[in-house]
Amino acid sequence: METIKIKTNKSQEIIDITHTIAEKIKELKVKDGVCFIYSPHTTCGVAINEGADPTVKKDIINKLNKFIEPEDNYLHLEGNSHAHIKSVICGNSVSVFVENYEIMLGRWQSVYLMEFDGPRNRELWIKIIN
Amino acid sequence: METIKIKTNKSQEIIDITHTIAEKIKELKVKDGVCFIYSPHTTCGVAINEGADPTVKKDIINKLNKFIEPEDNYLHLEGNSHAHIKSVICGNSVSVFVENYEIMLGRWQSVYLMEFDGPRNRELWIKIIN
Amino acid sequence: METIKIKTNKSQEIIDITHTIAEKIKELKVKDGVCFIYSPHTTCGVAINEGADPTVKKDIINKLNKFIEPEDNYLHLEGNSHAHIKSVICGNSVSVFVENYEIMLGRWQSVYLMEFDGPRNRELWIKIIN
Repeated sequence: METIKIKTNKSQEIIDITHTIAEKIKELKVKDGVCFIYSPHTTCGVAINEGADPTVKKDIINKLNKFIEPEDNYLHLEGNSHAHIKSVICGNSVSVFVENYEIMLGRWQSVYLMEFDGPRNRELWIKIIN
Repeated sequence: METIKIKTNKSQEIIDITHTIAEKIKELKVKDGVCFIYSPHTTCGVAINEGADPTVKKDIINKLNKFIEPEDNYLHLEGNSHAHIKSVICGNSVSVFVENYEIMLGRWQSVYLMEFDGPRNRELWIKIIN
Repeated sequence: METIKIKTNKSQEIIDITHTIAEKIKELKVKDGVCFIYSPHTTCGVAINEGADPTVKKDIINKLNKFIEPEDNYLHLEGNSHAHIKSVICGNSVSVFVENYEIMLGRWQSVYLMEFDGPRNRELWIKIIN
């Protein structure tokens, strides 16, 4: 298992980690397999979506905040229930294919760390199965 | 890695692809493993849910449109931000078990392609690990 | 493929199944791999999130019920459309890493069965790939 460290800078932020993941996959020298990218946290998520236009990321954060409001009558007293809920619906891991030692992504796809309760020092765990 | 091609016919549509996936798994002649079904797109999703009653699919699309409205003050100018957001929360891949060369699904489960920005020619990538 | 049985007690309930999964993984004596936890149902989900404070679970259920209301003008006549929709957005499977024969989870993470249409007798399918 490999670990990647990511420092987030805002309370809510979608960070494109495609390059970091792609480099790590190359390093691991697996010709063919499936790579698992796993967040060990409970207030951020991992997702794959459009990386070209930065407005997409803003629209995702804005809309999630509309139906999972950061401030509400939550019972959990740490003030980050919304981040736990978003983490559950986005998911805390993704899998991507590896072929010829390289990550396989669709033309418009990027791998995202979804920060919902930052800024924090996050890590992701990586494992490839062949 | 295998590729399956699916033509969608509506702007939003849930298509049952169980049969196509099951056939592809049989073709690949893997006795025991996990099959990954991966969408390389950013405005559709892949999910597993009830296939028996077609009203379930309609209820899913209708409700998603209630809290992720197709038209809103989105910043992304292509008019499909709602589809990106739905793709993030549904996820762009699923995994199913393979035993005795066959897909393992629960009694009521079907594999769905979730089209949120069609009609389009979509493809899914398939890989089995044993 | 292994099977775990879980009896749920309420119509909606988040059940911490970490201990059961961890024990099953130990039993399977796989030194290093990825464990897949798969729900063969269509009205419950599987997720990984915070296990320490029980109010987080309540906040998740309460908020999901706000934007995916149990009662609405659903077309599906069984009265559980909300549960199908929640199952789609939470997902029906998770994967966790196995190292030195043990489940790898983040400090605050628990594995959850998300019951959206109980009480029922549920089962989860488990497979480890190394």
